[in-house]
Amino acid sequence: MTEPFDAVEVITAKRDGGELADAQIDWVVDAYTRGVVADEQMSALAMAIVLNGMNRREISRWTSAMIASGERMDFSSLSRPTVDKHSTGGVGDKITLALAPLVAACGVAVPQLAGRGLGHTGGTLDKLEAIPGWRAALSVQQMTAQLEDVGAVVCAAGSGLAPADRKLYALRDVTGTVESIPLIASSIMSKKIAEGTGALVLDVKVGSGAFMKSESDARELAETMVALGADAGLATVALLTDMSTPLGLTAGNALEVAESVEVLAGGGPADVVDLTLALAAEMLSAAGRADVDPAGALSSGKAMDVWRRMVAAQGGDPGAVLPSPRETHVVTARSTGVLARLDAFAVGVAAWRLGAGRSRPGESVQPAAGVVLHAKPGDAVTAGQPLLTLQTDTPERFDRARAALEEAWDITDERVPRVGVVIDRIG
Amino acid sequence: MTEPFDAVEVITAKRDGGELADAQIDWVVDAYTRGVVADEQMSALAMAIVLNGMNRREISRWTSAMIASGERMDFSSLSRPTVDKHSTGGVGDKITLALAPLVAACGVAVPQLAGRGLGHTGGTLDKLEAIPGWRAALSVQQMTAQLEDVGAVVCAAGSGLAPADRKLYALRDVTGTVESIPLIASSIMSKKIAEGTGALVLDVKVGSGAFMKSESDARELAETMVALGADAGLATVALLTDMSTPLGLTAGNALEVAESVEVLAGGGPADVVDLTLALAAEMLSAAGRADVDPAGALSSGKAMDVWRRMVAAQGGDPGAVLPSPRETHVVTARSTGVLARLDAFAVGVAAWRLGAGRSRPGESVQPAAGVVLHAKPGDAVTAGQPLLTLQTDTPERFDRARAALEEAWDITDERVPRVGVVIDRIG
Repeated sequence: MTEPFDAVEVITAKRDGGELADAQIDWVVDAYTRGVVADEQMSALAMAIVLNGMNRREISRWTSAMIASGERMDFSSLSRPTVDKHSTGGVGDKITLALAPLVAACGVAVPQLAGRGLGHTGGTLDKLEAIPGWRAALSVQQMTAQLEDVGAVVCAAGSGLAPADRKLYALRDVTGTVESIPLIASSIMSKKIAEGTGALVLDVKVGSGAFMKSESDARELAETMVALGADAGLATVALLTDMSTPLGLTAGNALEVAESVEVLAGGGPADVVDLTLALAAEMLSAAGRADVDPAGALSSGKAMDVWRRMVAAQGGDPGAVLPSPRETHVVTARSTGVLARLDAFAVGVAAWRLGAGRSRPGESVQPAAGVVLHAKPGDAVTAGQPLLTLQTDTPERFDRARAALEEAWDITDERVPRVGVVIDRIG
Repeated sequence: MTEPFDAVEVITAKRDGGELADAQIDWVVDAYTRGVVADEQMSALAMAIVLNGMNRREISRWTSAMIASGERMDFSSLSRPTVDKHSTGGVGDKITLALAPLVAACGVAVPQLAGRGLGHTGGTLDKLEAIPGWRAALSVQQMTAQLEDVGAVVCAAGSGLAPADRKLYALRDVTGTVESIPLIASSIMSKKIAEGTGALVLDVKVGSGAFMKSESDARELAETMVALGADAGLATVALLTDMSTPLGLTAGNALEVAESVEVLAGGGPADVVDLTLALAAEMLSAAGRADVDPAGALSSGKAMDVWRRMVAAQGGDPGAVLPSPRETHVVTARSTGVLARLDAFAVGVAAWRLGAGRSRPGESVQPAAGVVLHAKPGDAVTAGQPLLTLQTDTPERFDRARAALEEAWDITDERVPRVGVVIDRIG
């Protein structure tokens, strides 16, 4: 017996409301990665953390321990500064696709390790994979070369990065221990710190389509992550943004690529453009380039140039026709008035059920499945007009998608104020 | 997918402070037994139960579900009524050894499925195995025949009885989820109800050497178990008894057999005799024989006769010389006065470290290891007199055993009132 602690002792300390010592945290995360602490022990500890919490010091140490479980990337040798953006996930959140090339076009490199979708929220890699030929897997050498050459890379994280987090995340998913701000914050930040970015901007979503339904929870998560960044010496700021309704007019993989290309071409829905520019300004400022106006890089076409080079560098054909669905179904407005609400969660579930998302890690997704919005909250609508178009290759999915949308919107006679997508800035 | 529930849904319901529905409890216990609910899911649920509790209905249903996971024994065809006793475990608690033959000598059958020790508390089977030749494993047929013929049997539970409890208990042991009154109560009562006894008397220990350190916790556990018995139609009463100091003058396997034989011979320490008679009276009363005075069966030698037949029926030699230790070490009193405190937990840990107990299920124990007490709280002691004798076959264990006893007792100049072992009766 050469282990300095006993798993039960660590579990019961947290169960009984105590604080875990630094050495206990270091040990339990490392021992879990090594398999000495068993899954059933870690899930009991995770549940105790969900219910009894962790303080700032514990979360910071937990994050460090997860980073220490694997390798840490380093892009400090690049000729330009690096900055990354992370979103806590929402419906129609395609922001990364236009944002990464936009920021790169402004002279700052964006090394983004992205993920795949699960449940009602899409994943950036799934979206990019709708582009014929595009591949998510890159070696560190390929990633570094692309950052130097193109300035932006969006790819899958290698298995060597924060393996403790990878293992713990899969465990939390099946044990009802996802919903914990300390565990969510440390999971996100361990990956982003290990990724080696020079600065970080967080997009913390709040609303029905987001993981955090209440603004107070979202604010606490944002503050926790900003503090974790500071503890690790990583300049971090967060925007709190609205996710009560989908971002833009599309939710689905190829649909969101097409909408992102519109933004890069100088068009696109106002909320997507606004959030892209707000996040770009934060990223440039965090990277020491507060003087550059990202709107210019959109209108000049420079961001589009970087997009095309970024897609091509990963095997994708930026000029290819995107997949289109075999079947579509139109949902119409039931009355005339103003669209007062169009629920993000319901639209996300509908897109998922149409085939855009997956229920279990590893399942394939349909590139052409999804939902197109024909109106946003605040828009006038007429009874019988198309409100949503549902798309899928497998029409037997329409019924369950329509069921998800049953209570998804309200039409009112009153005025509906339009609200901005950015709620607050934390950092 | 033919399962009516999803494990995560059940876990999160309890995590969020909700009540589990009967159907959810039935399913999760059954699915865990079948391996459909994984260990890491059950441990997360167990931790949620530890921290958020279960109400009376939930505990009762959980108990029923564990009983339903296996077979249920039935002794109703015996020519005499049956009654069992269960102790929540303490130091020096050898009561079963004399009690089972005593009650049988009074005309009531005692079908006791007992366990092995773990940690600082001993196990009844370990004690009886100190008798050369005695074996714990009996078939149901052998058990039934011995109950009819001898009237008392103490043996190991078969694996078919409440397998859900067996699996869950092993899981709780390694996941820091033992300390939960709902889980403790349902574990004990599921086994005792499945055992098929006609009535049940519980000995719920309170004090440093017991699982329940506070009287309020012990009382809650006792009340919960009595209610679970009532819910299942099993007449159940509980005695709340003191475990601040060891029972009797011995802690250790062969030592406790010898002390029990003294009680059966009409002697033995007063506290052991008192508790044995109190429990016997409760058991006889629960079995409808309140008219019989158990003290008479001790003084007449009838209980001793049943003991000898009970031991012999399971292969043991009641006349055999019990194992004696290779080495002994005497701990002496440091001052003169009255022994005010002799801590049960410390003595239990010392006996365990000397080899009387085990740290993991399956480890062997030393039959001759243990601690002999030369004084009890309230006794006058003189500086330098023997206070404890430590016994082991492996003298390298003395140091750690002595360390456990460092703060184990106080000697005072003041009067120390003697307190009775029975604190209260619940039922």
